[in-house]
Amino acid sequence: MSGALACPVPLGAGDRVLLAHGGGGRLMRDLIEQELLPVLRSPELEPLADGAVLDVPPGRLAFTTDGFVVHPLFFPGGDIGTVAVNGTVNDLAMCGAEPLYLSLGLILEEGLPIADLRRVLASVASAARAAKVRIVTGDTKVVEHGKGDGIFIHTTGIGVVRATAPLGADRVRAGDAVLVSGTIGQHGVAVMAVRDGLAFAKPIASDCAPVADAVLALLAAGVRLHCLRDPTRGGVASTLNEIAAQARLEVEIQEEALPVTPEVAGACEVLGLDPLYVACEGRFLAFVAPEDADRALALLRSRPDGRDAARIAVVKPSGAGLVTLRTRIGGVRVVDLLSGEQLPRIC
Amino acid sequence: MSGALACPVPLGAGDRVLLAHGGGGRLMRDLIEQELLPVLRSPELEPLADGAVLDVPPGRLAFTTDGFVVHPLFFPGGDIGTVAVNGTVNDLAMCGAEPLYLSLGLILEEGLPIADLRRVLASVASAARAAKVRIVTGDTKVVEHGKGDGIFIHTTGIGVVRATAPLGADRVRAGDAVLVSGTIGQHGVAVMAVRDGLAFAKPIASDCAPVADAVLALLAAGVRLHCLRDPTRGGVASTLNEIAAQARLEVEIQEEALPVTPEVAGACEVLGLDPLYVACEGRFLAFVAPEDADRALALLRSRPDGRDAARIAVVKPSGAGLVTLRTRIGGVRVVDLLSGEQLPRIC
Repeated sequence: MSGALACPVPLGAGDRVLLAHGGGGRLMRDLIEQELLPVLRSPELEPLADGAVLDVPPGRLAFTTDGFVVHPLFFPGGDIGTVAVNGTVNDLAMCGAEPLYLSLGLILEEGLPIADLRRVLASVASAARAAKVRIVTGDTKVVEHGKGDGIFIHTTGIGVVRATAPLGADRVRAGDAVLVSGTIGQHGVAVMAVRDGLAFAKPIASDCAPVADAVLALLAAGVRLHCLRDPTRGGVASTLNEIAAQARLEVEIQEEALPVTPEVAGACEVLGLDPLYVACEGRFLAFVAPEDADRALALLRSRPDGRDAARIAVVKPSGAGLVTLRTRIGGVRVVDLLSGEQLPRIC
Repeated sequence: MSGALACPVPLGAGDRVLLAHGGGGRLMRDLIEQELLPVLRSPELEPLADGAVLDVPPGRLAFTTDGFVVHPLFFPGGDIGTVAVNGTVNDLAMCGAEPLYLSLGLILEEGLPIADLRRVLASVASAARAAKVRIVTGDTKVVEHGKGDGIFIHTTGIGVVRATAPLGADRVRAGDAVLVSGTIGQHGVAVMAVRDGLAFAKPIASDCAPVADAVLALLAAGVRLHCLRDPTRGGVASTLNEIAAQARLEVEIQEEALPVTPEVAGACEVLGLDPLYVACEGRFLAFVAPEDADRALALLRSRPDGRDAARIAVVKPSGAGLVTLRTRIGGVRVVDLLSGEQLPRIC
């Protein structure tokens, strides 16, 4: 009897991923048809061909990829599926683009509970709906137990560029205001708290969310944006360092302007972290022409996803790529790039 | 002193990847600036922004992603870098598209020798040049030793569709001829031989290569192609099974027409493999309208990359998704989809 005619055996909730689920045979087809397609359903994904054929609106395209190895897979406010969608959607937004399509590449470890895979796929689907993108193509591989860590994901995104002027560190000018779209450090603290088994009176949830709508609103309002960047790995401090170095200008942060919740500030003290270096997954930094800064901030704050937006720094002509912090008591210190990282495998 | 001003310490050949190389700090910047950019250099990659902005020719786009977990990383005829580029380039070609751009996502295991990373990146760069695609965006993550396996790669590709008629299993018709673009089974056998420590008198090299030029030549010649598919995981047998099931038609393979070299046939006997199920990484199957089949085969054979092309099967109206094999002695047997796979982690 043909494999195509065979009735697949449905996977039970107690089942686990087998090496053979990645092998191109019947078990792989069953995994894709039973677990992936029903959840991620899109007209482009359906034919299960080698790729998707897309109608894309005219204009320049943004194209970006990101790998996700966050550990643990699940944390308050999200999971690896949520960050995998929002991380790439937000990178497209940072190019001034409207996100349209995503690809989903999975590397599963043999022995992964099917229930965990289902939960992550459901998060991928719901995050994609919330961010208004479609998963149009994908790939699944399985590696032996002990050669992976549950699930690794790569998402790659395509968007159509809506920004009319180029964005980038090379467009940053002295005098630019630096806005952040919300409170900082929640994502990293949420993941670290689970990893370290810490329980706070009020659990801290990841800030993981799509930021494209907020960026598109700024663009639609004609705000002169010079550079956009989401402060993920390495947090606000590392992101500003990268931009300052490329722009060869100084970025001076006002400590008192940084939006850090008391919960995150407290958790950072317990964990020995500096919130300036802790990853966000639903925030962005915008370098804005000074004359548009107040308007941009008001627009962000008028949105439910931007209530805590703040003007946190200014670009100064002095210095060659320095980031400095003007402290609450008026001192100034250098905010350096860390050598490694405070937090491994945070995204 | 600012991180941006610090002179990076060049990585030595004896060095290894550290967890901190994935952390968004100075070590990660050094890894990218010293190891990745000089090798993969492209104008889009250079700004190290969150994504690339691309000018894409008008028309429909093909978009595809693939994960690569091949073990071992290096084998005769290629390495994980070669397959990562050609695998995705070939998936674009299977959509009838001209490959243009690739993204490169790396998941490195802590402790990976920098020399191995360099060798793989050099292969990525040279395979991309050979396939006429540019690496325009990328991402690097590092996981702890024992949580990965050297290098995992995801590549995602964008191409512009050159086929004027839609391609797919649903376009396959009874009477279609099935062509294969060259000898089968080399890639899988090459990898398995290294893994099992087998030495053959004449080493078998992977067939890993880009097939886009051959496909574009068929399209340019106006050959009526109905479906294209590259027989990677699961080999020719699994690929034909997928298509037969979707088309609800029977595919009858002529055993004597299958291009298998004596070396691969011999190695398959030693390894206990059936070459019909062994992965190729530089071959494609074309379902062609019968009246164009001779011309298509002649065109393929006139090319250096298609000397061994063959007409291996015909589509028959009978059957509901069966693949059958007409043997050398005239018998007919069903060629089923395997449950799992003969060869784990072959790509």
